[in-house]
Amino acid sequence: MERAAPLGVFDSGLGGLTVVRALRERLPSESIVYLGDNARVPYGTRSRETVIRYALGCARELEQRGVKGIVVACNTVSSVALEVLRAELDLPITGVILPGARAATNAAGEAPIGVLGTLGTISSGAYTRAVASFSSRSEVLGQPAPLLVALAEEGWTEGEVPRLVVRRYLSAFFGPEEIPGLPRASKVGCVVLGCTHFPLFRELIESELYEIGGRGIPVVDSAAETALDVEAVLEARGLATTGRERGELTLLVTDMPKSFESVATRFLGEQVPGVEQVDLRSA
Amino acid sequence: MERAAPLGVFDSGLGGLTVVRALRERLPSESIVYLGDNARVPYGTRSRETVIRYALGCARELEQRGVKGIVVACNTVSSVALEVLRAELDLPITGVILPGARAATNAAGEAPIGVLGTLGTISSGAYTRAVASFSSRSEVLGQPAPLLVALAEEGWTEGEVPRLVVRRYLSAFFGPEEIPGLPRASKVGCVVLGCTHFPLFRELIESELYEIGGRGIPVVDSAAETALDVEAVLEARGLATTGRERGELTLLVTDMPKSFESVATRFLGEQVPGVEQVDLRSA
Repeated sequence: MERAAPLGVFDSGLGGLTVVRALRERLPSESIVYLGDNARVPYGTRSRETVIRYALGCARELEQRGVKGIVVACNTVSSVALEVLRAELDLPITGVILPGARAATNAAGEAPIGVLGTLGTISSGAYTRAVASFSSRSEVLGQPAPLLVALAEEGWTEGEVPRLVVRRYLSAFFGPEEIPGLPRASKVGCVVLGCTHFPLFRELIESELYEIGGRGIPVVDSAAETALDVEAVLEARGLATTGRERGELTLLVTDMPKSFESVATRFLGEQVPGVEQVDLRSA
Repeated sequence: MERAAPLGVFDSGLGGLTVVRALRERLPSESIVYLGDNARVPYGTRSRETVIRYALGCARELEQRGVKGIVVACNTVSSVALEVLRAELDLPITGVILPGARAATNAAGEAPIGVLGTLGTISSGAYTRAVASFSSRSEVLGQPAPLLVALAEEGWTEGEVPRLVVRRYLSAFFGPEEIPGLPRASKVGCVVLGCTHFPLFRELIESELYEIGGRGIPVVDSAAETALDVEAVLEARGLATTGRERGELTLLVTDMPKSFESVATRFLGEQVPGVEQVDLRSA
């Protein structure tokens, strides 16, 4: 495999672009081919078998395009399909769960770790297993937050509705309201954004945690941590690019490239290049 | 085709069960095979080509099971794929748009018609075309309401969040607030629930219309109207069952039968029989 080959990144849709953003900040010279399987989004509500089948289709498409490694920028796929992907493909595979779990274990100390994610990610228990690999004492409290995905895709990230939705979900991380109006006791030492859509609500989540508990609680975004892991993997395998120029970014989707283009900037944080449509029908 | 054969009904997921409910109220002796393509839900955010491909897969699965006619219980598919389905299958095909548009034209008089739907249904212009086939004077005001789908699937149909979401979407059907606190002028003579999930919010929509406009505005649910059309088609073709007993109900899904079973009762309004999983992968 060549050092100059691109990294492959895939997700069920748009959300993985927050991981691409972190990769381009940490590893600006690496070229990236991103595949968003938006014809089959969302993965988070599907069965384990279906997610594995879809993930294999995405990974093989990237493999055919000559990538030197694959970043699974989707918590649902990272929860259920990493082992299958590693068994089926002869490429280094990095997920987003382990890096996020490691950062959370550091941030929470010995307090339990709160995780917001899709129903699929939470019910898979992936964060519980990942945290257990770093600490025998850290407990995980998972809370499914499916409406935040819908709100992020609609661009409805400010105002009363997202605030009430965030508050309802975060409420699971606090004890009962002992005295009306006074802060509630936090059950967690940090909160992990366990879905790539959720960085869009980061400030809202931080302020609502403060509002409910009366003090700041660290919020962990796994994208930056994942970029660190990818850097280490590329170095260890002698696959890091030696190029000095800014790497190229190629965006592939399985449906509606125009519509994808128009909302991708919000997730990517830079101007979006042209978007190409690919067909994974045989997958 | 035999009179005793079942009717086929399909939708992208759960929502079409509100149409099954109306069919079983109107035509209790007809047997029904329902197919919910929940492995590929939602259709409402996908391209026209993708929706047509998925719809053909569903319709052929029902055809192979010997149905005597097909009810497309999905506004998105009814918007973009009815003509293709009629060309490809030798079966009577009934959609949900035309019946809803007819009822709306009657309810609105000469006032414009408000339609709430998915982005796909609204941007297809299907209601505008359907209404134009009944009246040359009725205008259609469409409002995409994607969050209502997410709220319905999560079962979050009561309280402040659905109320604020409904209010924001309905606001498009009213003029500006001339004097704070006073009712706003309605731009529409009725509001069509242009997505099969939305009957779950019917009372909330009715009360918010009253709250914003200071008077009741009729709400049209196309499910009951669709059942009347299906009855007429079966009679005209000599396909109505002569049976007297309550018809059988068979539920098929493309993913997660257990999870489907647990939420289907809310949409169907009766006890859910066993749910069988089918594979449309080749479609």
